[in-house]
Amino acid sequence: MRTRLTTERRRAQLLAIGAELFARRPYGQVSIDEVAQAAGISCGLLYHYFPSKQAFVAAVVEEEGAKLLGASTPDPADAPLRQIVAGLDVYIKQAESFPDGYRMAHYAVPTSGDLNSAHQTRITVQRDRILASLATATSLDGETEIAVTSWLAFVETAILDWVDNPTISREQLRDLCIRTLCAAVGLEADARAIKTVAR
Amino acid sequence: MRTRLTTERRRAQLLAIGAELFARRPYGQVSIDEVAQAAGISCGLLYHYFPSKQAFVAAVVEEEGAKLLGASTPDPADAPLRQIVAGLDVYIKQAESFPDGYRMAHYAVPTSGDLNSAHQTRITVQRDRILASLATATSLDGETEIAVTSWLAFVETAILDWVDNPTISREQLRDLCIRTLCAAVGLEADARAIKTVAR
Repeated sequence: MRTRLTTERRRAQLLAIGAELFARRPYGQVSIDEVAQAAGISCGLLYHYFPSKQAFVAAVVEEEGAKLLGASTPDPADAPLRQIVAGLDVYIKQAESFPDGYRMAHYAVPTSGDLNSAHQTRITVQRDRILASLATATSLDGETEIAVTSWLAFVETAILDWVDNPTISREQLRDLCIRTLCAAVGLEADARAIKTVAR
Repeated sequence: MRTRLTTERRRAQLLAIGAELFARRPYGQVSIDEVAQAAGISCGLLYHYFPSKQAFVAAVVEEEGAKLLGASTPDPADAPLRQIVAGLDVYIKQAESFPDGYRMAHYAVPTSGDLNSAHQTRITVQRDRILASLATATSLDGETEIAVTSWLAFVETAILDWVDNPTISREQLRDLCIRTLCAAVGLEADARAIKTVAR
């Protein structure tokens, strides 16, 4: 039974179905047919919204990335490092709950220039957020900026590696990331106190 | 004046010319014509060795990556962290001397599946080297492995960011990377002592 939806709603429905399917299985194993079937539409109509599987995958990743970025918005009422820990937890939990979706969003999808640039934009937003959080706790300089940008790469790799080889607990992963950030931005002395606050 | 070279020598000559040209200018600005001209051969002959510019770029990056990996081979006679610092210095100096070549080797070249997998292989070699260096100084576990893999991503991003925005000195960059590693693998207490040794 097919239902007529507005363009916008249909698009949102397809993205939600994609997110659901890609989150639990490697995206290579999910066919466009399956997505269309789940939406109760023809493949032809799906291709009307997204010209290729690759374009569809890119749109799903983009949508999910934007949601995670929203969900990890820091609360300015929190202490600086607590803001950062809260954001980190959003990503760790997402990766733990939906490992395939997380891998898809972070490993390069073949020839995905658009994906990479959207990802780069989100990294910039996260970097600026973290710098804003840190600004109230430490003085920022060129080194802090390099440290935070590099730490985001650390976290991305750490979470991906952990998803593939979950040899440590979620808490250990979080502590690893946070003590690394503290060292990188020169907050060593406060690390212990902040860890307690953050838990 | 054209010289006849053996296949192997011609290939090596072309890769050396590519490394030289790409190291000093963005690779988008270096044409295959220019490479052929510098080698004193026709474009046709160059395409006989490398079917496309992309294949040529991939081969140059691969060759340079292998050289850097060789140049950064740790000396087992050195103290553990000194081994790691020495390897790090090889990459930092290379990036400082040949920023465009470094960018080319580390930013994704469009649709470069081969490049990415060669890069991934080198990362694994570096990770195993660092774990071997650390094994004599600390006990290794799953967390150390995640920490080292993630730290390599930290360093890669730090050097790239620094090449684009050299707001800190080479020594500051190195200290940033090393103190971050110490925190990540739980060598905080020794960090100060090791820093002095490493200099």
